[in-house]
Amino acid sequence: MMYSVKEISVLVNEAIQKRKFPTEPAELYEPLEYIMQLEGKRFRPCLLLLAKNLFSNEISDSIDLAIAVEYFHTFTLIHDDIMDDAPLRRGKPTIHEKWNNNIAILSGDVMFVAAFELISSAPDKHLSQILRIFNKMAREVCEGQQFDMNFESRKHVTIDEYLKMISLKTAVLLGASLEIGAVLGNASAIDASHLYHFGLNMGIAFQLRDDMLDVYGSPEIFGKRVGGDILANKKTYLLLKALEEADASVKNQLEGFLTKNYLEPSLKISQVKSIYDSLNIDELAAETINFYSSEAFKHLAGLNLPEERKQILLNFCAEFSKRQS
Amino acid sequence: MMYSVKEISVLVNEAIQKRKFPTEPAELYEPLEYIMQLEGKRFRPCLLLLAKNLFSNEISDSIDLAIAVEYFHTFTLIHDDIMDDAPLRRGKPTIHEKWNNNIAILSGDVMFVAAFELISSAPDKHLSQILRIFNKMAREVCEGQQFDMNFESRKHVTIDEYLKMISLKTAVLLGASLEIGAVLGNASAIDASHLYHFGLNMGIAFQLRDDMLDVYGSPEIFGKRVGGDILANKKTYLLLKALEEADASVKNQLEGFLTKNYLEPSLKISQVKSIYDSLNIDELAAETINFYSSEAFKHLAGLNLPEERKQILLNFCAEFSKRQS
Repeated sequence: MMYSVKEISVLVNEAIQKRKFPTEPAELYEPLEYIMQLEGKRFRPCLLLLAKNLFSNEISDSIDLAIAVEYFHTFTLIHDDIMDDAPLRRGKPTIHEKWNNNIAILSGDVMFVAAFELISSAPDKHLSQILRIFNKMAREVCEGQQFDMNFESRKHVTIDEYLKMISLKTAVLLGASLEIGAVLGNASAIDASHLYHFGLNMGIAFQLRDDMLDVYGSPEIFGKRVGGDILANKKTYLLLKALEEADASVKNQLEGFLTKNYLEPSLKISQVKSIYDSLNIDELAAETINFYSSEAFKHLAGLNLPEERKQILLNFCAEFSKRQS
Repeated sequence: MMYSVKEISVLVNEAIQKRKFPTEPAELYEPLEYIMQLEGKRFRPCLLLLAKNLFSNEISDSIDLAIAVEYFHTFTLIHDDIMDDAPLRRGKPTIHEKWNNNIAILSGDVMFVAAFELISSAPDKHLSQILRIFNKMAREVCEGQQFDMNFESRKHVTIDEYLKMISLKTAVLLGASLEIGAVLGNASAIDASHLYHFGLNMGIAFQLRDDMLDVYGSPEIFGKRVGGDILANKKTYLLLKALEEADASVKNQLEGFLTKNYLEPSLKISQVKSIYDSLNIDELAAETINFYSSEAFKHLAGLNLPEERKQILLNFCAEFSKRQS
């Protein structure tokens, strides 16, 4: 049968709820129960099952694999939150805040093991291929996080470097989730590759959209404070594009803002935003987002499947971009 | 052919030397090149190849798997050193000391991925089984580290709890290395299990011997300062056994030492040691070591192999316990 997005989402959530970690040592597993109860979007496991369902009517036998990608994602959040010294995750204290750094390091490690355990449960005939996809993705996500940390202290970051970083840190996991689903559904190598690249390009578009919403989004819908990236001097696509587009004097002015942390926050936001506006950064960013979205759609179009079967992926992505949380 | 310990050790070292990490991002991979150059004993990969060689003349096709267990071990060292705030590893600055905690967390993570990549290169017919052995071991090692950290702040730890902790933290990796080697050599399930339990019991014996050498070893051979565990109030087998054996008054005295950090170091060591001596702790510990060693030998005896083939494992373990570094 063809599942709806809603049905897949319910399946994933129920499976995650039902799955319990061992009880001992409690210090190791309680943080994992805690973070899994914070209920994210479960975007990645849903993608995996949606992709499987494109090629196979049976998806219940792939739920463990779907949870694997969510566990992996959660592992990266736990460790990234330590590295970024983030106090909150989904509005609740992060593990290193609620417990401590050591607990967060080690419970992250064991979450990583749990992800590998579930990935290793893939059917024998697909196991080797799925491991290859998963391991490559895992390495790239670590590399992406390292580039992201490097960029914080670097003065110059090119747009290409930034795109590579978000591709590694965020987008490859969407691509891999879809590709693993396709492999599980016995898709052809070409279709599996199309799905990977659909996810990869969509992931880049999503991240750029995130950057844009920080400045141009409405806080009611977006849920975050507008201008947070500006205040944090974060090297987003908008900032890097503005530095690229600006003439010497505006560039100088913009770089000045990056060091002026004494400015009154709303003043800093409005002044940076007015530079962005003068350079049409919103339009330029929208163009780039459209570029990556249309790359994604090309790969969707390339899939050797009836058009109506593909529609569900489009619906899901549209739904996801609406929520953006 | 039947390889000598020396030959296997050379093979392992050369293979590790030859294997390079990617160059970018340098911040992620330089620490891994650094720590792999510190040249440990390479005990675990040698065990894996020794076990394989018991059942198969060909071992060169298993070297990647052998490196996988060394990489996994190195990953645990990197993260454990952060958690234990250890300044030195093999006499050189630890990664978090030489770089910083974030670098150590993330390069540890990518080392873990590198281990999984190599484990995933197992031949298809063994892949699923080897993953099961490896994942179970990886989870247990994390649990062992958590118990170890818990014990630091706990007042009472039983001998059984301690033995379980060292079994998880240290011994299961020796067992798993041997078992993976046996599986790769197409050993019977019974022989693979015997080798696992040989490694497990030997690992416990080694760790207990480590505890003993801290107090009773000669610093020239052992390489560490004698009494380091006593000064650190570490809950070793010796201390736990002494607390168990002591009458109320001696127990009180011993517990007193655990809180008296103002005592002159050599005085504290000699006084705790004299309590150990009065309780014959060295003999009791030696008995326990003999128990686990003879359990290990029973499993070696159970192996369905000519006795002379087994001798190499005994030689290797004897060699290892001599070096103890």
